[in-house]
Amino acid sequence: MPELRKDPVTGRWVIIATDRAKRPTDFVRDRVEIRGTGFCPFCYGNESKTPPEVLAYRGHGSQANQPGWTLRVVPSKFPALGIEGTLNRHGEGLYDKMNGIGAHEVIIETPDHKATLATMPANRIEDVLWSYRDRIVDLKRDKRFKYILIFKNHGDAAGATLEHTHSQLIALPVVPKRVLEEVEGAREYYTYKERCVFCDIMQQEAESSVRVIAENQAMVALAPFAPRFPFEMWILPRAHQSAFEESQKFEFEQLASIFKDMLMRLDKALDYPPYNCILHTSPLPEASNDYYHWHLELMPKLTKVAGFEWGTGFYINPTPPEESAKFLREAVAPVGVGS
Amino acid sequence: MPELRKDPVTGRWVIIATDRAKRPTDFVRDRVEIRGTGFCPFCYGNESKTPPEVLAYRGHGSQANQPGWTLRVVPSKFPALGIEGTLNRHGEGLYDKMNGIGAHEVIIETPDHKATLATMPANRIEDVLWSYRDRIVDLKRDKRFKYILIFKNHGDAAGATLEHTHSQLIALPVVPKRVLEEVEGAREYYTYKERCVFCDIMQQEAESSVRVIAENQAMVALAPFAPRFPFEMWILPRAHQSAFEESQKFEFEQLASIFKDMLMRLDKALDYPPYNCILHTSPLPEASNDYYHWHLELMPKLTKVAGFEWGTGFYINPTPPEESAKFLREAVAPVGVGS
Repeated sequence: MPELRKDPVTGRWVIIATDRAKRPTDFVRDRVEIRGTGFCPFCYGNESKTPPEVLAYRGHGSQANQPGWTLRVVPSKFPALGIEGTLNRHGEGLYDKMNGIGAHEVIIETPDHKATLATMPANRIEDVLWSYRDRIVDLKRDKRFKYILIFKNHGDAAGATLEHTHSQLIALPVVPKRVLEEVEGAREYYTYKERCVFCDIMQQEAESSVRVIAENQAMVALAPFAPRFPFEMWILPRAHQSAFEESQKFEFEQLASIFKDMLMRLDKALDYPPYNCILHTSPLPEASNDYYHWHLELMPKLTKVAGFEWGTGFYINPTPPEESAKFLREAVAPVGVGS
Repeated sequence: MPELRKDPVTGRWVIIATDRAKRPTDFVRDRVEIRGTGFCPFCYGNESKTPPEVLAYRGHGSQANQPGWTLRVVPSKFPALGIEGTLNRHGEGLYDKMNGIGAHEVIIETPDHKATLATMPANRIEDVLWSYRDRIVDLKRDKRFKYILIFKNHGDAAGATLEHTHSQLIALPVVPKRVLEEVEGAREYYTYKERCVFCDIMQQEAESSVRVIAENQAMVALAPFAPRFPFEMWILPRAHQSAFEESQKFEFEQLASIFKDMLMRLDKALDYPPYNCILHTSPLPEASNDYYHWHLELMPKLTKVAGFEWGTGFYINPTPPEESAKFLREAVAPVGVGS
């Protein structure tokens, strides 16, 4: 008998198949391969093919928009939103609209075309996290913005249009509905319990440990109780912190390390799957608070989009998180144990 | 400058690209083709390969679970939920779950393996609509169910696992969150205005007509003001009606006719695209009401899933609905006009 499970933050119900649970090898898909053919605007020497950089980590003496960088942030060449202008809300009969003010930036994570986050050294991944922080800190001074969305599409099937590894940032004049739903859910729980729901989740998961995949001093990686997708995982800081950009250096170090570990386990368990990764952090207007808890959500793209899920928010997940956590725990053998 | 638009029912904001709007030929994808190779459990003679039928429209003298039917409804062979048992909600620490009680049925729309809804005669499509109604009427007597979800995935890329044309029905012991969001949005509008928001939408669309694709005596097909996807369309009954199953024969006739017309236009304008179609109807407990208005939502699958949309509910649509409506209006020439 399948099971219906409710996500304790958003209240979303999902169907978890328990009978004929799908194992990693049951998902048929193409593995993500970096071909490296053709022109790449994110490689050394092609800096002029992107808009001028807004941030770069570079060796001493290297010049802006020239080679010599290790990480580079540039405005998107095809921005979903425009940075110039005043926000102008207006109506059209019963409809509401506003002009598309916002920022759309691309974080080029490395000059190495062949690298992926999973193969990059942990300190380079830490740089990627610092660049997220630096851009949030800069953009949040612009009071037109209400939310900064940072995400990563890895592989063509997950929506990446360029294979050179990169993340994207979109600063928005509104808080997206799903983000608001999660933040409101966390606030309601806090009003009722006077505790953060994510802190409570980590505590309960630590007690049973069936859904914990890995942990280190500052971070916990787990398969959530009511995942929408097979092998979905969340990485959370142990200490309560609502705004990603207010975390400490130690946390970014530890996040880089566990993030790399998770990506290597994914590659091992699922044979280099495409994936989406989304940073869930507090909306800007009330960034520091007691009720929300930032985290990363990581979703390998294993199943076809059963399109009705778009319209209904109803998910059927063929792999229980207890099993996906087990596969992922065993995917990289700690000192000769398991496989 | 792109535009942010808000859906008046759900409050969802979407980004509509206005600068370099994508035309039908800009979307690269495989056209849906019916190969007809291999064994098909939905064809004549293979009735024993599905669970026994719960409904069939058959010629006189033909026997249950034998050839001779024109439409057949069977329980899913791989059900997402089980029909037997009592609903049992329970907790697990801070988590909530319940056993997976529900129904999962497949509507085999025709015995003709090579047919699609677009090529079937309108009266056969009307039969499909009647079968939706008949199954809803039967299943709503079961008080364990709170919502009946009816949807159709057409083509592999849209999630169809068998190519023989069919719809699916899932009866659920909870109302899915997105459905609830839409129903609540409509209720709030009604509380404020004392009018149905969908009736108001149709009125406003009729006045400007830029987003109207087609209409007949009982039905209107339009591109919504804030569509999530390029070429998304909604078909609504002109007369206020919250529950699909309470509509009249005339409305099913007219819906069959406009639905076929829309599918033919899609095939023409977008070269046989995969699509998802979802029936949006009232939850069962308060099916008849003044605030909700049933409708069909039809979404061709043209774009890759930018996965962050799953997590954020934030959509970027590269084709304004005014343009998609124009392409679709012109896709089938009414008596020698257009192309």
